[in-house]
Amino acid sequence: MLIVPEREIADLLTRDASFDAVEKVFAAMAAGDAYNFPVIREAIGHEDALYGFKGGFDGKGLTLGLKAGGYWPNNLEKRKLINHQSTVFLFDPDTGKVSAMVGGNYLTALRTAAASSVSIKHLARRDAKVMGMIGAGHQATFQLRAALEQREFEKVIGWNYHPEMLPNIEKIANEAGIPFEAVPLEGMVEADVVISITSTFAPTVMANHISAGTHIACMGTDTKGKQEVESALLAKSTVFTDEVAQSISIGAN
Amino acid sequence: MLIVPEREIADLLTRDASFDAVEKVFAAMAAGDAYNFPVIREAIGHEDALYGFKGGFDGKGLTLGLKAGGYWPNNLEKRKLINHQSTVFLFDPDTGKVSAMVGGNYLTALRTAAASSVSIKHLARRDAKVMGMIGAGHQATFQLRAALEQREFEKVIGWNYHPEMLPNIEKIANEAGIPFEAVPLEGMVEADVVISITSTFAPTVMANHISAGTHIACMGTDTKGKQEVESALLAKSTVFTDEVAQSISIGAN
Repeated sequence: MLIVPEREIADLLTRDASFDAVEKVFAAMAAGDAYNFPVIREAIGHEDALYGFKGGFDGKGLTLGLKAGGYWPNNLEKRKLINHQSTVFLFDPDTGKVSAMVGGNYLTALRTAAASSVSIKHLARRDAKVMGMIGAGHQATFQLRAALEQREFEKVIGWNYHPEMLPNIEKIANEAGIPFEAVPLEGMVEADVVISITSTFAPTVMANHISAGTHIACMGTDTKGKQEVESALLAKSTVFTDEVAQSISIGAN
Repeated sequence: MLIVPEREIADLLTRDASFDAVEKVFAAMAAGDAYNFPVIREAIGHEDALYGFKGGFDGKGLTLGLKAGGYWPNNLEKRKLINHQSTVFLFDPDTGKVSAMVGGNYLTALRTAAASSVSIKHLARRDAKVMGMIGAGHQATFQLRAALEQREFEKVIGWNYHPEMLPNIEKIANEAGIPFEAVPLEGMVEADVVISITSTFAPTVMANHISAGTHIACMGTDTKGKQEVESALLAKSTVFTDEVAQSISIGAN
């Protein structure tokens, strides 16, 4: 079997390869060839951790397995470890034997970035010029970097609940040679594409923050109870999702 | 981290140690310190396999993780591999990092045997003399071997849907120096302790097959739809279970 430690992933997986993999699996899911199992996510009552399993089967790509792990909110402060910790386990779909164990942290970052990036490729307007970021944490940098490869963006605008984190995404914009501007939420009306990647439990993105025709990739809601987007905005949108069952129960991711 | 391949387990884990572990975790569950997560079990539509995850957390023993795998019914015939295939993954409950990967096949056999054995120790009458086996497959041999250590049994009686498999368990009885007798289901009235370990979806053990005061360990029902024991028998029994939520939804295991 293959054992791929976390430290090797960055040298093995490119943004292009993860984009390609996510695009293919979304297509396989739409065709009914691949699906996710119900998600297990448990507050285990220790270290305030959320732990669980996200499994699935791609019957066409013959990929079977799960990601196990979760969110340990005290990791960084107590142990200088990242709070999100996950490991991917693959199984041989012909025999049920375990076939690979793969560090899942960087993989998750790239995969999550690829997911919104695939949605932008296929759903955002072709002539999008202004990229809007709601959220400026660690994962937001991955989302933005991947998003900027999908259109000829001329400006990035960003908002974050903690504005002192905005330099995280400003740096990514600048690396791509694109100017960055911090805006209030109302300023998002200028965006042609918006990615929301926050951890809020209260709606933040209101209907009047978003212009008609704008593509929003809602990436932050990965747990029951989380909500980024006001219901009124959802109600007037055309909604696309990778998996309905998961989206209506716990959100995305 | 620890990686323990399947072939090493038999030399590492004894029946006594697995009995002890299962007894401790049942006590921890009863005390509210340990619990199982909801079980995922999916017919993946490939090789007729059932695949899924059984996870849980023992907050007292600080053991966190899951067993992943399932049932590949064509393994033995097609590939000379056992049909039940599983792997155990443990995680550090303080950090969420994976800490161990352990072959789960022999582990499952010993654990399942320990479960009924613990129930016999604590719930069967002290002076039990006749041990009854309903089922005579591979796992039945593990159940019987462990059960025989719990009381001074003087006879083993057995029934199996395919009687040609009864020598499997006769052999175990004889190894323990105890005579074996094949009986019809009606003959089970003689038993003081019964273990049912079949894969039936229709009730097999009827109320009139079991005498008052007999302890039955129902081990075969591990999936929605399976049933070993007639409702009328359950209705007149005193029922004990490791976990109510799991027992009323998918059965034991």
